[in-house]
Order: sequence, then C-alpha cells, then structure tokens
Amino acid sequence: MRFTSEQRLDGGVLERGVLEREFTLGEIPGILWTPEDASEPAPLILLGHPGGVHRMYPRLAARARRSVAEGFAAATIELPGSGTRPRSPAAEEARTGLRRALKAGEPVDDAIVERLVLPLVDKAVPEWRAVLDALLTLPGICGPVGYSGGVIAIGIRMAVVEPRIAAALLFAGSYVPRAMFEEARQVTVPLHVLLQWDDEGNDRQLALDLFDAFGSAEKTLHANMGGHTGVPQFEGDDAGRFFARHLR
Amino acid sequence: MRFTSEQRLDGGVLERGVLEREFTLGEIPGILWTPEDASEPAPLILLGHPGGVHRMYPRLAARARRSVAEGFAAATIELPGSGTRPRSPAAEEARTGLRRALKAGEPVDDAIVERLVLPLVDKAVPEWRAVLDALLTLPGICGPVGYSGGVIAIGIRMAVVEPRIAAALLFAGSYVPRAMFEEARQVTVPLHVLLQWDDEGNDRQLALDLFDAFGSAEKTLHANMGGHTGVPQFEGDDAGRFFARHLR
Repeated sequence: MRFTSEQRLDGGVLERGVLEREFTLGEIPGILWTPEDASEPAPLILLGHPGGVHRMYPRLAARARRSVAEGFAAATIELPGSGTRPRSPAAEEARTGLRRALKAGEPVDDAIVERLVLPLVDKAVPEWRAVLDALLTLPGICGPVGYSGGVIAIGIRMAVVEPRIAAALLFAGSYVPRAMFEEARQVTVPLHVLLQWDDEGNDRQLALDLFDAFGSAEKTLHANMGGHTGVPQFEGDDAGRFFARHLR
Repeated sequence: MRFTSEQRLDGGVLERGVLEREFTLGEIPGILWTPEDASEPAPLILLGHPGGVHRMYPRLAARARRSVAEGFAAATIELPGSGTRPRSPAAEEARTGLRRALKAGEPVDDAIVERLVLPLVDKAVPEWRAVLDALLTLPGICGPVGYSGGVIAIGIRMAVVEPRIAAALLFAGSYVPRAMFEEARQVTVPLHVLLQWDDEGNDRQLALDLFDAFGSAEKTLHANMGGHTGVPQFEGDDAGRFFARHLR
C-alpha cells in the first residue's frame, strides 16, 4: 500500500480534525480517512459506492467525516471498471441493457443483472479484502470492521466471506441477481438495510424479497421516500448508532 | 375531566420525576403522565395500544416515562369494549373469527377485519378527540400533538380527521380493512411506521401495501425481526427522535 497524497480536513462543527490520504494498492486506488488526534485505534468502516470515486467524492467525504466524528476510521476504493480503471466491455454492455429496460419501463431481465453484477462482485470482493489486509496493519486502525453502502451485492458477498466484517449497512439501491439470494441466506451479521421506497433505478419487490432472505437474526429495514439519491439526513444518525452498537 | 388518582414516579436514571394521574372523562378512563418539574408546556403524545390499559400498563408506563424524559407529556385511554368497559358482542365475535383464522393458518377474511375494526375506529376516535380537548385545557400541556402506537386503524383515522395531530408513529401490528386504504391516502402528516417482519398476528403484505398507500411526503418504515412483541429497544430512541423532529 502506497500513500500518494495527504491532506487535513477541518473538523468544523464536528470538532475533530480528519486526515485524508489517497493510496494505491497495486492497481487499486482508494482513500483513507482517520481521526487526526486518535488516542486509541479506531474501528474501520468500508464505504461502498456505485463506482467512480471522484464523481462520488463529495458524498463519500461527507460520510467519511461523519464516521470519523463518531470515532471510526473510513476507507473506500475504486471499483473495477469505474473511474480511472480499465472498463469491462461485457459490464458496459450489460449496463446499457439494464438502462434501456429501466428507461422503457420494462421488467429487468435477471440474466442482464447477472452479467452486470456477478463479475463485478467476483472481482471487487478480493480487492476489498486485500485492501482490508493492508489497512489493518496501519497504526490507529482496528477491527471489528463495518461495510456501509452499495453496491449491495458486494456488501452481501463481503458479509458472507470476510469474517472481519461484524456489521453491514446495505443500501438496497441496485439490482441483485436471484442467484445471490442463496448467499443472502448465509449472512448472519447484524444488518441495517436502507431502501428508497420510490427508487427509480431499482426494484422494490426484489429489495423486500432480499431483506426477507437475509439469515441474520438482527436485521432492520429503513424505507424512506425521496428517490434513489434522497435518503433523508436523519438516516445518517441512525447509521452511526447502528455501527456504534456493533463495532464498539 | 376528573382526576381519580395521582402518584409520583421516581425519575431514576432518566433524572426527571414523572407525575402519573388517572382520570375519567365521562365513561372513558385514562392515564396522564407529565413532567414533575415542567418549566414550560410539554407537547402531548397520545399513546395507542390494543386495548386493556391495566394489562398493558407496564409497557405503557415505560413508553410514557421515556416520552416525559424527552420533554413530552403522554396520555392514554381505555378503548371501547376493553378493560373495565362494556364488551361489544359483535366485536368479540369478529375477534374470535380472526383468531380462529390465524390459528388455522387461513387467510383472514377482510369482512371479519371490517366488522372488528371499523366500529372500533368509529367509536374510539371521537373519544380520543374529546379527551384531547380536555387535556389541552390543562396547564403544562400543549400542541402540536403526536399519536404513537396501535391500533393502527385508529391512528390513521386520527391523522386524517384531527388537525392537531402533527406527526404519527404507527405500529403496523394489527389488521386494517381494505376500506380504510382510501383514508390512508389522505394522511399527510409525517409518519414513522413500525413493522415486525415476522409478526405472527398480522399480514406483512397488507402492512407494506398500507405503507405504500399513505399520502405523506415524509414517511419512514422501520422493519425488524422478533415477532409481534419483539420491537427492539433501539426503536424507542428512534421514536423519540422522530417526535423531537416534528413536535418541537
């Protein structure tokens, strides 16, 4: 792991300075946020997103600063095929097919979802785990580890295969192939699932079926109005309390 | 309104003494909880329940003490046909039919739900409103008013017809006749809906359809595991924050 830049973010009203460091691990770029004045190691939260770290930066940085203010470290990485990383022609084709179906108001073919999501999960999860190995060797960062956000299929696989993940906040804002429901049944960590009830780019019934499938004894669904990007601000507080309950 | 008893509850860790007063308004018995040391009027939260104030007392008192600790007053009344009040033979018959269907694992006939719920709503809502009139004349109690809990059909009607209700926390733990979905569409106040995902005495799909029907621009659904009576303790915190956002 190699750090390529470093800056201090003013804590502002959060009253805690944040150290933001960009890094690369092999071909994977990422960002790490840690408290500037850490007196003890901070449990790590992995911030998932739909791909395109620079496009997503304002929202990722806001989530990260909030996490740090609550006593955590936070990290994100670029997804395979997104941002500055080489595109996957097969994934681009599947994405085009998905968008076409959504735009036409047609049902989304599960085969398209499989072609888009399964290769992404297969590639992203080992990358996340390699980054996690590297991050946990740094001073000031510790487990247990949380996964937070999308892509929900990546969060599901991480929760199943990565024993250091102790709790996951999953954003039900993207399609999950039916083939992954069996994995969802194997998830046992506490789950906090966010669903935008009128998400224009997702299938509500699929999300509800998925929530039903999760094997976790503690699972909570929070559904709100406001479209895909309209998650209410108070959900940020609830997310913080969820991780505080399970990572401290 | 006539007060029939009065006791002081130790604030304990909540660090605020609570005055608990039983009252009657005509034939309606009820309980009012207020902060002992109120320096300014407290917004009122009406505590709904399935009927049987004495049977429900431990849970009602816990909710009330929590509300008072958060700066609210709280009140509940006995439902028509419950507790010490005269039974309705028609309601008892419908309730028996509902229980029989649930026990046999059969689909619940909407006609049974109508016979059980509609007369209850028609009678309980004017009683709640009369009690509300009386409570709001007392010193130390003010609007805006919240409705919290079951019976969900009563909460729906209250939210539609009672303009002093500014926010409602509805417990989707009992059946709502399809005839009331039109009323649900007329609800516009902020809603916080609790659903026990594996509630043995309720219909999950009905609850999800109902959540979808509500007309409110701000509506949030919190679904948890644990059966009808297993609402997790952290939901109490979320409820307090919901009312703090909307009644202060």
